[in-house]
This record gives sequence, structure tokens and C-alpha cells, in this order.
Amino acid sequence: MNKKELLVELQRFLSPERIQKFDAVLAHRTRHFTVAVENLFQSHNASAVMRNCDCFGIQDLHVIANHNQYELSKDVAMGAEKWVDMHSYYEKENNTQDCIDKIKSQGFQMVATTPHTNDVFLPDFDVTKRSAFFFGTERDGLSDIVLDQADAFVRIPMYGFTESYNISVSAALVLHDVVTRLKKSNVNWRLSEEEVLDKKVDWAVKSIRSGEQILKQLLDS
Amino acid sequence: MNKKELLVELQRFLSPERIQKFDAVLAHRTRHFTVAVENLFQSHNASAVMRNCDCFGIQDLHVIANHNQYELSKDVAMGAEKWVDMHSYYEKENNTQDCIDKIKSQGFQMVATTPHTNDVFLPDFDVTKRSAFFFGTERDGLSDIVLDQADAFVRIPMYGFTESYNISVSAALVLHDVVTRLKKSNVNWRLSEEEVLDKKVDWAVKSIRSGEQILKQLLDS
Repeated sequence: MNKKELLVELQRFLSPERIQKFDAVLAHRTRHFTVAVENLFQSHNASAVMRNCDCFGIQDLHVIANHNQYELSKDVAMGAEKWVDMHSYYEKENNTQDCIDKIKSQGFQMVATTPHTNDVFLPDFDVTKRSAFFFGTERDGLSDIVLDQADAFVRIPMYGFTESYNISVSAALVLHDVVTRLKKSNVNWRLSEEEVLDKKVDWAVKSIRSGEQILKQLLDS
Repeated sequence: MNKKELLVELQRFLSPERIQKFDAVLAHRTRHFTVAVENLFQSHNASAVMRNCDCFGIQDLHVIANHNQYELSKDVAMGAEKWVDMHSYYEKENNTQDCIDKIKSQGFQMVATTPHTNDVFLPDFDVTKRSAFFFGTERDGLSDIVLDQADAFVRIPMYGFTESYNISVSAALVLHDVVTRLKKSNVNWRLSEEEVLDKKVDWAVKSIRSGEQILKQLLDS
């Protein structure tokens, strides 16, 4: 059974509304941008960023946990963990480098969101390049490992006494700006047909009761 | 002693950097927009909104608490409570109406941020009118009391499965968009000289150790 046939079989378990919703959401999904969060101590922050990724159509979120393994706050993520692909880095000695290597090997430029001497204000950031946006903790910011290897620095305007935004706020502001401009550009930012098919199968399995079991039966049949 | 003389006396207790910071922040402060939050159960959400107000130069935040009195999360507000004027509504039978009456009497149009049939997408919202942006809980949204009396509805684009943003994310997205566009407009959005002077005195008193006591001595002298 090829993947298209598999999807047809799986879709028999889904309502027409559900199938339509997958189409609608996938029409906005992108891998032109991705997001990486580093060493967030409070897991509700990472979960809130994950929810932002879903809202803005970012398919992949990279979570670096050098100190504490990341645990999802389900009430904050609001189910986004099903629809956003989370890539975790917590097993190596230098998980940040591990994440950077993977992201660079996939052809992304690394963008650090932090006040820095060479930074660009958000509205002036060039959205045509494939970019991975890195966010650090509010307290410590991003590590030197990220800052030393970043290709670009983006700064969000701030006009008050408070020197930083909450991380999920930073991520939302960046994503809203770059995604809105990306969609007005000529960039081919959408998922490929193959990627769309993969996500449809994945999401169908996650949406169906005993989905994994049914998938196995279909693959074995 | 008039207010200008009072400020000169108070500034003797402040560093030049502090005095300069007040000027820099006040150059971005506005009462062209204001924010109201309704019935937030988690006070860290209201504190995060307060911090957003500070970051985007919004001088006044209205906090409606019909069920539970609002307590500030100091670690989330990050000191913003000193610099943003918080107006609380929690003593009346209908605190929401109390807040609406006050805001309307000050000449603001009421803008509900919620999905609704007559809403405008955020980038199309007219920033030239003085506006109060109302935000409700993630769970229940805004009350009918707000929705029935709102002059306009604004919707933030969303492309995923998750049906809502966290409230501080919503507030940040709205404020970032409208404040950025306001500053490019011809609207006279800044505080008046009188308002600037008032805030300088207020902030000086809050910044000086035993500020209240020193203020009393100066006023009595």
C-alpha cells in the first residue's frame, strides 16, 4: 500500500470537517522558518512557544535542554504538541551545538533574537532566507554558543523600563511579523506535496482512537 | 512650590542616567491607546499584560476583577507596576460596567479583541481613533457586557489548530501592530507637557528611597 492509499484508508475514520481542517492548516504550514528555544527553566514557556508555532504555521520546534529535561505543560500547549513537530536535544554533552549542527545542515541561517551590536530591527529583517529563530531565557538570554555562531541578530523594539519581553511574547512578535511578510513575498514557503502527505498521515493517526494500532494493521495487510 | 520647582528638588536625589531614562521613556508614552483586561483568573497573565504596556508605551492599564481581586505577580511584572498606571475595578456589583463607563467618559472607543462576525483584521484597524483594547480570559473570552457595548472588534490572524493565543501574547501582538502604525501616522499621540511633568514627579518619588516622605517635606516646606 503506498502512502496515498494509506491516507485514503485512514481518512475513513475521520469526519469530513476534520479532513478539511487538515487541508486548511496545511495550506499555511511552513518549513521556511523554524524556531529553537534554549534552556527554558519553566516548561510552560516552551509550551506557549509551541502553541505560537501552531498558530503561525511553523511546523518544527527545536527544544534544547542542557540542564533539565523538557516536560510539556499540556494546559499551556493546548494540544499543539500533536500538530507541531518537536525536536528535543537533551542527551548529549553539548545539546545546543547538537541543535545548531542539525539546523545548519538543513540549510537554515541562525537568527538570534537578542539585543546586540549588529542587530537588525524586526521590520527590516530579510524574510526571503530560510531562518531558524533562537530564543533564550528571560534571565540569561541565549548562550555564547548560539551568539558566537549566529548569522544574524534581530531586535524587537521596546520603549519602556522593562528590558525584556516574556519569551512566548518575543516569539509571537517575531513570528507574526516575519510570517505576515513572508506570505506577501514571492518565496515558495509552503510544504512540498510529499511533506503534506506525510503530515496528513501523521495527523490522521494521532486523531483516530487507537490510531497507531490501525496504522500497523493497514501496513501489515 | 509649583510642580516644576518640586521636580527640580526631587531630581537632586536622582542620577543623571535616571533622569535621562525618564525622558527617553516618556517620549514614547501614550494615552491615545489604553488596555483593559477582564476577569483574568491567573494574576501572572495580568502582570504580563502590564509588562507589555510598559514595553509598548501604554501609560494606563485597566484591570477588571469581578470574581477575584487582582494580585500582582511581581516576578512577572518585572517592576512595570511602578511605571504603568493601574486602574482596578473590583468593589462594585458590576465592575465591568464601571470600567466601561470610565473609559467611554474619557473619549475612548471600545475595541474587543475576539473572533466575531463584524471584526476587522488587525492590520486593517484604524489607529487614528483613541481606543481602549479589551482582552478577556482564554477560556471564556470577554463578557457579553463588553461585547454588547463594543464599538469595534479586532481579530488576530491564526493559522493552526489552536483557537486562541495566550492573553499576554494577544495583547503584545495588538499593541505592537497599532503602536508601530500610530508612530508612523500624523496623530498627536504623545502625553501633554502637564502629563509628562506629573509622571516625572510620580516616578521620581517612586525611585527615591523614602520618596513619599521627602515629597511631604518638600510640599510642607
